[in-house]
Amino acid sequence: MTSTQEHPHAGSPVDRTAEGRIVISVDAMGGDRGPAAIVAGCEQSLRSDPRLDILLHGDEAVLAPLTARQPALAGRLHIVHADRAVTMEDKPSHVMRHGKDTSMWSTIGALKDGTAQAAVSCGNTGALMAVSMLQLRRMEGVNRPAIACLWPSRGRHGFNTMLDVGADIKAEAEDLLAYAIMGVTYFRNGFGEPRPRVGLLNVGTEEHKGRAEIKAAHELIAGHQETGRYEFVGFVEGSDIPSDRVDVIVTDGFTGNVALKTGEGTAKLVGDFLRASFRSGPLSMIGALLARGALKRLSSRIDPRRVNGGVFLGLNGTVVKSHGSADATGVAAAIGLAAKLAHSGYRGRMAERLVIVSKAAQDAGPNGESA
Amino acid sequence: MTSTQEHPHAGSPVDRTAEGRIVISVDAMGGDRGPAAIVAGCEQSLRSDPRLDILLHGDEAVLAPLTARQPALAGRLHIVHADRAVTMEDKPSHVMRHGKDTSMWSTIGALKDGTAQAAVSCGNTGALMAVSMLQLRRMEGVNRPAIACLWPSRGRHGFNTMLDVGADIKAEAEDLLAYAIMGVTYFRNGFGEPRPRVGLLNVGTEEHKGRAEIKAAHELIAGHQETGRYEFVGFVEGSDIPSDRVDVIVTDGFTGNVALKTGEGTAKLVGDFLRASFRSGPLSMIGALLARGALKRLSSRIDPRRVNGGVFLGLNGTVVKSHGSADATGVAAAIGLAAKLAHSGYRGRMAERLVIVSKAAQDAGPNGESA
Repeated sequence: MTSTQEHPHAGSPVDRTAEGRIVISVDAMGGDRGPAAIVAGCEQSLRSDPRLDILLHGDEAVLAPLTARQPALAGRLHIVHADRAVTMEDKPSHVMRHGKDTSMWSTIGALKDGTAQAAVSCGNTGALMAVSMLQLRRMEGVNRPAIACLWPSRGRHGFNTMLDVGADIKAEAEDLLAYAIMGVTYFRNGFGEPRPRVGLLNVGTEEHKGRAEIKAAHELIAGHQETGRYEFVGFVEGSDIPSDRVDVIVTDGFTGNVALKTGEGTAKLVGDFLRASFRSGPLSMIGALLARGALKRLSSRIDPRRVNGGVFLGLNGTVVKSHGSADATGVAAAIGLAAKLAHSGYRGRMAERLVIVSKAAQDAGPNGESA
Repeated sequence: MTSTQEHPHAGSPVDRTAEGRIVISVDAMGGDRGPAAIVAGCEQSLRSDPRLDILLHGDEAVLAPLTARQPALAGRLHIVHADRAVTMEDKPSHVMRHGKDTSMWSTIGALKDGTAQAAVSCGNTGALMAVSMLQLRRMEGVNRPAIACLWPSRGRHGFNTMLDVGADIKAEAEDLLAYAIMGVTYFRNGFGEPRPRVGLLNVGTEEHKGRAEIKAAHELIAGHQETGRYEFVGFVEGSDIPSDRVDVIVTDGFTGNVALKTGEGTAKLVGDFLRASFRSGPLSMIGALLARGALKRLSSRIDPRRVNGGVFLGLNGTVVKSHGSADATGVAAAIGLAAKLAHSGYRGRMAERLVIVSKAAQDAGPNGESA
């Protein structure tokens, strides 16, 4: 276990990246379950992926005893001390002004100075986005960065992508176009789908329905199918989010966040009702026992921990926001996603595509109409 | 079977209400499955509730052969001819101007003239709300009427109520307060809960989060707990919609509609995944067979048909919007809900409560602050 207080991001992890290794910067202090769950998740990741190194940001007095339990991983799990932690109650604006000594700030700092290739935090989403925007800056052509999530679906890749699920509480038509471009690049790189299908979330599929900014976004997104390399399927409804008629669902961060949490809450409710039903009689209990393989498959298919991690898109750096309540398995999934993204090089292609579309929009005139 | 073209709402149903009977006005032409499913739903309702009579609005040439199959119900199922039907593509504004000869118009007309005590339609939601507002008018103190739905929950009544789920695409703070009052009266009358708990849907439970109108609504709703006879639990998230910490969830119609459809879509996805899992091997299939009682209980617990029907609140008349894709069971559930509401007299108490709160808000000053 190395403490690197004097020069936090120096040392072995940096040198190792040259050999094709990946360094992930992890905020140890943000989760609802405390640092122990996060450290356990880090250890799970390190064991399953030998290319990984992890920088663990937080209070060394708390973290050192936790990491000491796994001496075999000592050379790959490096504590970076931070005096304070951001709480769930802290306002983003306050953290931006007074948060330089927090583990969250330090976690993103390691991305900014190039010591790590991707970052993971379970902490306060608003503060994490604010700190990330301040340190990493937005990509050209992006006014509002977004958080993208993966949603278990009937589609052939098993997942759809939805964004924004909570970076901001509103989005203009131009933001929704940028979300489409970012979501498409993300999906294409993640699943090898050459021309992802984009849907715009609305209260109905008829073109005259919905808010003004959504109708304007409908035109903008329809007009950039060629430059953005996607197929626009038009408006989709909440029931279409897990469907196989769309790959990328575009919406504002308020609606997307409510939809994401409603979906998670509903899946959990159905799962709980199912368990209660199976306990309701001896025949059902025997049935559940015989079918336990099937039930396990189901539960892993809809387990939110498996797809834990909202990815911040539109920044000059890869940040994964893990669920606040993530356990070790959830944290490991978020770290795995961060590592995969760091490897994929999607960010360069996304920046390129955003510039092309934003140039095309300028050429087409002030309203972004395409010819 | 009586055709009553000359004076559509005259005849036996009117006289019967004096004897404690209920007349429900049903739009036969609106559903995705066509009039046959709606007629079958009507017949199911008439068989299960001997107090009911139904006025069935639509094309007599289509409806007469369908209803002729059940001669035993002939005296209680009355066709009211209408030349045209509103389609799903029709704009509400167009239907308001040119829709007087549609079955939807006629369905609501029977409420307006007092021939029926409640109405049911599977048709175009926007048009149904527009036609209902035009003919029935809003209650005093209501700027935007709302659609309320029931949501299977962990609560002790088994259901929570959410509104608005799609009457309008936006809501100001004052509208959200009116939704709270309406939702509370609806829930109290439906479930006998003296002091329902109200939550305001947001992207987080911290008070500094969310859009301006939602923060303003937080103050307004908190300030009227006594006059409105409810307990305000503050902000709730999407995951809380089916929880036992809240009875009535208040939100704007855009967010509510997306949440409702996302919840339905997720429940259906989990159900489909479950069935696929059970077909995946012989042991699982035997297990599913043994547990089929439990699975049936689960499926009836989350079956959207069981709770089919969004209720329009804030109008001088009881209108139930059934799911467009409702089958006979779904239509019967919507008719059953309409009959229950017509019996309950909730509308008088809601109107009373709205006037009390709106007076209290005026007394407290222009911003609706309560002392």
